[in-house]
Amino acid sequence: MLKRDAVARQALDAIAAIVGSRWVRQAPAELETFASDGLPTRHTRPGAVILPGSRDELIRTVRVLAHQGIPFVARGAGTGLSGGAVGDGGEVVLALTRLNRILAIDPANRRATVEPGVVNVRLSEATRPHGLHYAPDPSSQTACTIGGNVAENAGGPHCLKYGVTSSHVLELEVVLPDGKSLVLGSAGGEAWGPDLVGVFVGSEGTFGIATRITVRLVPLPRAVRTLLADFASIRQASEAVSGVIASGLVPAALEMMDRNCVRVVEDSIYAAGYPTDAAAVLIVELDGVAEAAVAAEAAEVERLVRAHGARGVRAAADERERARLWQGRKKAFGALGRLSPNLLVQDAVVPRTALPDILDRVGAIAAEFGVTVSNVFHAGDGNLHPNISFDARDPQEVTRVERASAAIMQACVAAGGTITGEHGVGSDKVHYMPLVFDPDTLAAMRAVRRAFDPAELANPGKVVPVHACREWTGLSGRRRETVRDGERRREIERVEA
Amino acid sequence: MLKRDAVARQALDAIAAIVGSRWVRQAPAELETFASDGLPTRHTRPGAVILPGSRDELIRTVRVLAHQGIPFVARGAGTGLSGGAVGDGGEVVLALTRLNRILAIDPANRRATVEPGVVNVRLSEATRPHGLHYAPDPSSQTACTIGGNVAENAGGPHCLKYGVTSSHVLELEVVLPDGKSLVLGSAGGEAWGPDLVGVFVGSEGTFGIATRITVRLVPLPRAVRTLLADFASIRQASEAVSGVIASGLVPAALEMMDRNCVRVVEDSIYAAGYPTDAAAVLIVELDGVAEAAVAAEAAEVERLVRAHGARGVRAAADERERARLWQGRKKAFGALGRLSPNLLVQDAVVPRTALPDILDRVGAIAAEFGVTVSNVFHAGDGNLHPNISFDARDPQEVTRVERASAAIMQACVAAGGTITGEHGVGSDKVHYMPLVFDPDTLAAMRAVRRAFDPAELANPGKVVPVHACREWTGLSGRRRETVRDGERRREIERVEA
Repeated sequence: MLKRDAVARQALDAIAAIVGSRWVRQAPAELETFASDGLPTRHTRPGAVILPGSRDELIRTVRVLAHQGIPFVARGAGTGLSGGAVGDGGEVVLALTRLNRILAIDPANRRATVEPGVVNVRLSEATRPHGLHYAPDPSSQTACTIGGNVAENAGGPHCLKYGVTSSHVLELEVVLPDGKSLVLGSAGGEAWGPDLVGVFVGSEGTFGIATRITVRLVPLPRAVRTLLADFASIRQASEAVSGVIASGLVPAALEMMDRNCVRVVEDSIYAAGYPTDAAAVLIVELDGVAEAAVAAEAAEVERLVRAHGARGVRAAADERERARLWQGRKKAFGALGRLSPNLLVQDAVVPRTALPDILDRVGAIAAEFGVTVSNVFHAGDGNLHPNISFDARDPQEVTRVERASAAIMQACVAAGGTITGEHGVGSDKVHYMPLVFDPDTLAAMRAVRRAFDPAELANPGKVVPVHACREWTGLSGRRRETVRDGERRREIERVEA
Repeated sequence: MLKRDAVARQALDAIAAIVGSRWVRQAPAELETFASDGLPTRHTRPGAVILPGSRDELIRTVRVLAHQGIPFVARGAGTGLSGGAVGDGGEVVLALTRLNRILAIDPANRRATVEPGVVNVRLSEATRPHGLHYAPDPSSQTACTIGGNVAENAGGPHCLKYGVTSSHVLELEVVLPDGKSLVLGSAGGEAWGPDLVGVFVGSEGTFGIATRITVRLVPLPRAVRTLLADFASIRQASEAVSGVIASGLVPAALEMMDRNCVRVVEDSIYAAGYPTDAAAVLIVELDGVAEAAVAAEAAEVERLVRAHGARGVRAAADERERARLWQGRKKAFGALGRLSPNLLVQDAVVPRTALPDILDRVGAIAAEFGVTVSNVFHAGDGNLHPNISFDARDPQEVTRVERASAAIMQACVAAGGTITGEHGVGSDKVHYMPLVFDPDTLAAMRAVRRAFDPAELANPGKVVPVHACREWTGLSGRRRETVRDGERRREIERVEA
């Protein structure tokens, strides 16, 4: 039930008058639908779910919530993997899937304006006749919404060359948590002064809600080469990744899948012809305008991966084979469902030079905690996805999964990396934030958030841990602090008097 | 003299004890040196100039200023073109040129950490032995500092392919205006949560001072082709630019110079062999890893520019000729000094599809106001630099220059562009901000600034016009407001009761 029930009932009545009562959902089975997103370890029912039918209805709804001081969580398709679209229970969820109109496509200036509920792949479908597409391509792109992508600053395989969501958003019309509507950035040019679009993208719904999103479109590449390279060891595959990147080449995508992933994909309807005896495979895609240029780069990649021990390199013969190679990669998360009822898709970053060692370390952590880890990830930018298979009905197994996750995070940070590359902090990573940010920096993040949302009504409790370090360790009487030690950050533990 | 003299004298004594009295400058001739930057229409003497010798001295100096509530302006080499490093008179200037150490170069992870006073080109010189360079290359790169680049989010010719400063900054250690030291971002990976590095870069010194800057390094390209194409009309050259960009090719750089620029360069010691009978020339550079790939792209560019009417296309035969072509381009601003005692280097952006028309319009504005405009600019990203030659000793001419500038800004905004691409808002553009942002958005910028600097001590009066619209028109009883009109912004004028 909603917090502050009488006030809340009044607010919901007012909102029902705005959006229509059928778009205010409160039945337990309905609330259950919105109690989770793609993070299997988080499950809390909202107090109510509102599905506004237009930008105007959304803004008026936010104004009612603001007036009554009721916290809310904006939600797209619920495909997020960090629990960012799930509250801590009792909030109002604003589900934006009905705001799904593409408002404008401007092929000459290569931009489009969409409502937040537009599904990612729909925009590329709509712009394809103009020879353009929307480049960020999360694996969930057939379901996830561009509004959710903006909230989490989503990535995808082709973000290696083209950049993550923040590189593609030009202008945002947003509604702040107090109901005020505001335009950030500029569709017509680069940002200047404080980059409010940049700070809004990736703020995980804690700064307000994007009501209209103007994005860059990118020309469809005229020439493409997609290579599949297979390796007898994960270490060789990692070293090949480092070798390609060190050469200065920027492939459109450079993905790695380990044996577990290859095998579940090949056992599934998404079988892509990956060699099932490989310890790891790489998918390397080169694209560009001039056919001869792309062919020359592909030849250079083939030379490099063979020099690093690739057993075989196969180029997709045609668009159909290319689509098949990619479908296997993008559906790997689904295929991993063959191994267990639940899958925790982890997300972390390491410097690319640390890839060979960190994959060994992840393997050791899996063995230590007795969990199954499968790796399918954006190797080209050092963005790991160590996926842990488990059964959420077994509480002891859940504990082992959470401990293994924490160990992986700590290992990545120790290797000079960070706790998320593209899935966001959400509720899953909030307690890891003090691993990489000191209390002052976290306070600065919170201060900026409060410039947009003084009452902290929008997705409360996300991104910045309110009790910072104390919350992290959970040890009473002890504080863990991150301090600067020369050029590095170091963790210290303080026992309080 | 400093505002609030007694307090200020006390503060300067305390600062002299920190930095040494020879690094506190107050003699009129010394202050005069810091009364301008690269914007010729702004000249105001600071109250005092402090030149701290280390990060520690800088932080302690800021603490003294904060304690006494004394406003300050941080300054690098003073090459900025928007008056961003010049106060409104009486502030303390913190000149950071002594903080010029490269603290760390990490070739394996392709990053470097520098102090803010490191000269841009010095970093690339230091990293060249590792096959790496710092990509953002403002024309002033032999003088400007990386701290100043961070403040203004500086660009440069090669930012077309490689991105402006904000794409290259990984982590910032900053001192906030209250003296607190803070780390923003992460050297080890991508940003997540609110992107505090992104919002700090380009905040023009109004959020605090970067004390240590960790940047990305980019591999030196192994293969380069530099083409010079010449045209009988500016319109054809502009259409060629649009044609190259429309093809999907991303040259490393795509620069245009008009006849005025070509001629002054050819008359100077930087003569580069540009054809002096051309109405405009383009410099197009392609770079990459595979020689054959770059050659194929260069051939495609040549085909495209010829199809758009290029009279001739010449490829630099060797590194020496390439350097000469670039030197002419980068020294064009200096060479324009041949035309007049002063030069206003303007900066605006239009959608690339609007380039042909806007250059006609700029020509018409020059004729209308009787000023000489020379164009040398980053055509590939639609970033104009219409440079106005004038004599600052003639007040009537200065007025004409300012009116022509305003007309150019309005034309660019009307064409769907913005008021600055890379030089920042500074003091020159602050009154144009309401042309592109409505009062609520400006208020949001100010709110974010106040999260970092509640007392507004850091570079006061920059970026966000405090009286917003009222300041813009200067019409008493009238307000100009920018409103949304469907997908576009429109200006309206309101007469207040």
